[in-house]
Amino acid sequence: MASSAPKLVAVAESRRFMIDCFKAVKVPQAHAEAQADLLVAADHRGHFSHGMNRLEMYINDLAINSTDGGAEPKVLKETPATAWVDGLNGLGAVVGNYCMDLAIKKAKTVGVGWVCAKGSNHYGMAGWYAIRAMEQGLVGMSMTNTSPLMAPTRAKEAALGTNPLSLGAPATNGDKFLLDMATTAVAVGKIEIQRRKGAALPDGWAQDPNGNITNDAELGFSTGCLMPLGGSELTSGYKGFGLGAMVDILSGVMSGAHYSTQVRKWTHAGADSAADLGQVFIAVDPNCFAPNFEERMTDFNARLRGVEPTDPSKPVLLAGDKESQNMASVDAAGGIQYLENQLKTCASLAEKLNIKPLAFN
Amino acid sequence: MASSAPKLVAVAESRRFMIDCFKAVKVPQAHAEAQADLLVAADHRGHFSHGMNRLEMYINDLAINSTDGGAEPKVLKETPATAWVDGLNGLGAVVGNYCMDLAIKKAKTVGVGWVCAKGSNHYGMAGWYAIRAMEQGLVGMSMTNTSPLMAPTRAKEAALGTNPLSLGAPATNGDKFLLDMATTAVAVGKIEIQRRKGAALPDGWAQDPNGNITNDAELGFSTGCLMPLGGSELTSGYKGFGLGAMVDILSGVMSGAHYSTQVRKWTHAGADSAADLGQVFIAVDPNCFAPNFEERMTDFNARLRGVEPTDPSKPVLLAGDKESQNMASVDAAGGIQYLENQLKTCASLAEKLNIKPLAFN
Repeated sequence: MASSAPKLVAVAESRRFMIDCFKAVKVPQAHAEAQADLLVAADHRGHFSHGMNRLEMYINDLAINSTDGGAEPKVLKETPATAWVDGLNGLGAVVGNYCMDLAIKKAKTVGVGWVCAKGSNHYGMAGWYAIRAMEQGLVGMSMTNTSPLMAPTRAKEAALGTNPLSLGAPATNGDKFLLDMATTAVAVGKIEIQRRKGAALPDGWAQDPNGNITNDAELGFSTGCLMPLGGSELTSGYKGFGLGAMVDILSGVMSGAHYSTQVRKWTHAGADSAADLGQVFIAVDPNCFAPNFEERMTDFNARLRGVEPTDPSKPVLLAGDKESQNMASVDAAGGIQYLENQLKTCASLAEKLNIKPLAFN
Repeated sequence: MASSAPKLVAVAESRRFMIDCFKAVKVPQAHAEAQADLLVAADHRGHFSHGMNRLEMYINDLAINSTDGGAEPKVLKETPATAWVDGLNGLGAVVGNYCMDLAIKKAKTVGVGWVCAKGSNHYGMAGWYAIRAMEQGLVGMSMTNTSPLMAPTRAKEAALGTNPLSLGAPATNGDKFLLDMATTAVAVGKIEIQRRKGAALPDGWAQDPNGNITNDAELGFSTGCLMPLGGSELTSGYKGFGLGAMVDILSGVMSGAHYSTQVRKWTHAGADSAADLGQVFIAVDPNCFAPNFEERMTDFNARLRGVEPTDPSKPVLLAGDKESQNMASVDAAGGIQYLENQLKTCASLAEKLNIKPLAFN
């Protein structure tokens, strides 16, 4: 009986484990905490791809110094509403939190803060930084470029990343709207799942090596050419391509970081060069416009959630609703249920780094 | 022979005709010019749905005073980086130009200008305002909410508009990136075209009255429930839904205008109430970040246009490329070729408003 019961990891324990891992590769306490907070937040929300799943990759990068765990970001240029920051190859959460906090400060002074960073690394879920602004009663946005994985409409090869964008807007009583989306139709993780199931890919997810849509999950996975949101040209995939390019312009080109095909290929093993990703962090104070923004957001959310559903058993979900539900489930259950594979990776990390293994509830 | 030759209308003559129409319904000269510049720019670019095609609707609205052709927008609240504007039910181009010019001024002073307008009307192609910022060497963005036409993912009824967003970024030698897209998979116009052709709709364009995907163009048109960019839930239509909601939050909710299902239904005949649309105009000075932005944009554009195409006869097109090509064709031909239907509408407008009819080259 005991062996079939789910092994749950308390949120605090997951965080403790990740902090210990980072510290084992010489990351200072505050930076280890920032990075762990970001990753555990993703797991808490059910976005496992952006949580503990990324830990090994970060540790590999840190161990060979392709990310500098101790680096502190630096402002290169500043106006009352903007800042240009060099992340100096520091941890994504360290660079991201620094930049969003600066954007928040500026938004509180002149209404908008717009901060661009170069020299950054993978910064986890884009929504994390929007949440940071929302916690201050502001509207927050963030975008990042990433390693090439998306084939532009009509193209055979990848030339943009999954380039996510996020927007968070606070409503009353802790309610909110929180969009956090890749500009590809799906993430690589979804293709992996179809592959494991032996199921076909829907049209519009991925291409084969000749640049045509494929329904073959194995081929889609090995080719590594995701299609933009919208899929083929007929179903307006060029809009998703345009959005992915917009994200790269605002994060990579504007900041002077790597962009498009300049960004290094994705690697799990640890890279031999700095990522030099570009990111943008925007905070806006809604009080600079019509009063009672949060009250209107509550009404806006109610209107959208209240539209009559096609299938009565599936009500309309607003961006962020699934994640809030997942957080509530984790809290009710008393912990996060990781996949067996993930737990094995954690066990071997603990051994390799000589830290206390992950404990279960 | 003469009857089969295309009837071309010079860009200047199209503009002259529209100005005369507006003046005939008591719109002051400067406002008539602003609105005509906007509409003829769309026709020049090949976006006929947003050009002369809209003229009759505007004239109808103006004639019954549901739009105030003489209204001047007014600033309600201001900071160095932001402004909240009341469009006072004026013409879309008048409100839009005013707001973008204000955003440009602020961007030149503090790096960013973020202007929200309530009390506005249809403002034509969203890209128009991004172009205005680009002409000043800035990055420009604009978004507007519109009448409900998009069914949220899982919903049976429309609760958001086609809610377009635009982003313009200048490159060197007049090259640029200009994204201007609705957040629905397609615009109503594309469904009309399939209907006229008697062709089926691809999956993911439109819903039937029960909230299911339809391939029936007639039914799709009469139902008036467009699907978000991405199509069904399986192909990530919830991302397009999220983007449409984002546009409404930043334009409608933030400005205190109507939003979501508050926005009046679409009518061509002239509405009996003010539209009270919300819009946002953002200008950012790229010189506040890494130097040589335009040079990097040129390289970015070259990288994307240069990706190997799947079909060698169809090179990769960047957002805005099709429109630039169309402008060049119009200039080479010496005029815009309107549809016969449109020319009939112009002839009857000329008669009704007692103005000089449209002349052909």
